[in-house]
Amino acid sequence: MSPSLATAAVTKHLQSVITAKGRDALSTSVLPALLDGIVAVAVALRAAHHVALAGGTNAFGDDQLNVDVTAEHLIREALARCPTVATASSEEDPVERTVSPPATSSSSSEVYTVAFDPLDGSSIIAPNWTVGTIAGIWDGATALGSRPADAQVASVLGVYGPRTTAIVALRVPGHQQPVCLDLGYTEPSSANNNNGSWDIVHENVRLSSGTPKTRYFAPANARAAADDNNYRDLILHYITNKYTLRYSGGLVPDLVHMLVKAHGIYLSPVTAASKAKLRRLYELCPVALVLECAGGKAVDAATFASVLDTPLADTDERGGLICGTAEEVDKAVAWLGKTEAN
Amino acid sequence: MSPSLATAAVTKHLQSVITAKGRDALSTSVLPALLDGIVAVAVALRAAHHVALAGGTNAFGDDQLNVDVTAEHLIREALARCPTVATASSEEDPVERTVSPPATSSSSSEVYTVAFDPLDGSSIIAPNWTVGTIAGIWDGATALGSRPADAQVASVLGVYGPRTTAIVALRVPGHQQPVCLDLGYTEPSSANNNNGSWDIVHENVRLSSGTPKTRYFAPANARAAADDNNYRDLILHYITNKYTLRYSGGLVPDLVHMLVKAHGIYLSPVTAASKAKLRRLYELCPVALVLECAGGKAVDAATFASVLDTPLADTDERGGLICGTAEEVDKAVAWLGKTEAN
Repeated sequence: MSPSLATAAVTKHLQSVITAKGRDALSTSVLPALLDGIVAVAVALRAAHHVALAGGTNAFGDDQLNVDVTAEHLIREALARCPTVATASSEEDPVERTVSPPATSSSSSEVYTVAFDPLDGSSIIAPNWTVGTIAGIWDGATALGSRPADAQVASVLGVYGPRTTAIVALRVPGHQQPVCLDLGYTEPSSANNNNGSWDIVHENVRLSSGTPKTRYFAPANARAAADDNNYRDLILHYITNKYTLRYSGGLVPDLVHMLVKAHGIYLSPVTAASKAKLRRLYELCPVALVLECAGGKAVDAATFASVLDTPLADTDERGGLICGTAEEVDKAVAWLGKTEAN
Repeated sequence: MSPSLATAAVTKHLQSVITAKGRDALSTSVLPALLDGIVAVAVALRAAHHVALAGGTNAFGDDQLNVDVTAEHLIREALARCPTVATASSEEDPVERTVSPPATSSSSSEVYTVAFDPLDGSSIIAPNWTVGTIAGIWDGATALGSRPADAQVASVLGVYGPRTTAIVALRVPGHQQPVCLDLGYTEPSSANNNNGSWDIVHENVRLSSGTPKTRYFAPANARAAADDNNYRDLILHYITNKYTLRYSGGLVPDLVHMLVKAHGIYLSPVTAASKAKLRRLYELCPVALVLECAGGKAVDAATFASVLDTPLADTDERGGLICGTAEEVDKAVAWLGKTEAN
């Protein structure tokens, strides 16, 4: 169960920051396996030109499906090397299936389930925009029934762009300080005698408090503003107050933009005509942990309750999302929660 | 002057489609050199993790500058291998400097100047979003003074995302049919016995005419809508009519999205408070040629004249942009050209 060479530096850092006892497999096996899986997906995507059959919106349905399935397979293959991962489920296959039988994990007190979205942002794969992988690591063999704020101990966002990068968030019970790391992968190179390695680019990713020079907004599902005057007015508020628009339509790149710029508000409201479509288990919970570990907030777009407060009853539950700096989330909630006058 | 191995397939295709005489160097030397340069920039970007110092907006100014300078250097290095490229200038160094002295190009009737933006989208490099290179190839030793629609014979958009891709547009005088190609680069791999190659993913990129199922809008400089009621109303029109928002803030990815989805409208208006900032020579002209070769339109945001109709007097001229399908551009011009009532 030694860490892969590529993740040695990350494992060393995780071991130094996770002071809670009985979490060895998290830093030496489960997180390294997910990072290995992300590298495998990056390599597969790089050659996937035939998702990008320019000139027709209908032409690449099947090819995109193939890339999704490949990513799903590569992440599962990486997790299969982790004796403490009892089960795993994904957006492509939302059933918590056995990965490592209990017998093999008896030498450790650690038992995890991993819930992942192998390739988020299907609609922007063809135009070669940045896309991502989302994964949450939960204590126990199931993510259902327990409060996500307690049971989901870590999450990972893999980012496939000009570089391969990742955000890792950790909030382990008994360990006071949440952690949010920004990692960068360097490719194998015979010139540099490098076999490929993940390195820590920033060890303390934090959203800024107060008002920064540039403020960013990402209005997902903007079509919902056609039916929701509060959302329409809020978008106009951002425009009038000269916020900068950045909206790729990929949940991972949109949130990573916010983390790197240290400011932002992402909104995906739910209206009668436009239903909730973000999966709580595969998208909302991992993303909310990242936001909270970076000092921000993530709330449900309908109830305005913290995403991580309500236990999941089903792997397929869906919701809307408002997330970003605490100040911006509170402001957006105040706007969207208004009783509509017209 | 044989084409590099990596671009052999592209050169072969270009030779079959460019029926005009005396254009050998375009397909065997200049376009291959730019594609080689794009690969070199992609490789350099992949390791540039320290542009991405998450957590502070001010921290990465110098690093970003380094990436810009590296890209500039790599494209110039590639062009230096082209005897028919008399001069080149770039957004980083907007002076048409000698590349190959006239003596060395005497064996060919072809003489070109190349105008390029080595790395467009600086603000989204740190968050690992897709960025690009823009280049225009002009007949003669200078791009100044002649009508861009006649003198700019080709342009290239390099796209750095999960894959390395490129759009190549050609409209050679004496050759009836404009060409717009979508290319994909496959990395060298000992496993596949591949030394790296550019292949044609789609040989006829076309925007659709008529009304597609999904309509896209990309409102650049949305802050301008704070001062411009017409722009504000047009954005509301798109929202009310349920267009899908996709706006990365990178000119190359925003336009490539439109080309791959076969529909879109990109707006970068100019108001009294928000000045024109897109460079005509390094951004607007190459991009306008791509749009026109794909069956779309690109007009100046202030005069509504075709971008390619007005000769350049200076390498640093700037403008706004409205581009996309002809139908959407005409509609946007009608909205933005209204005399303001309020």
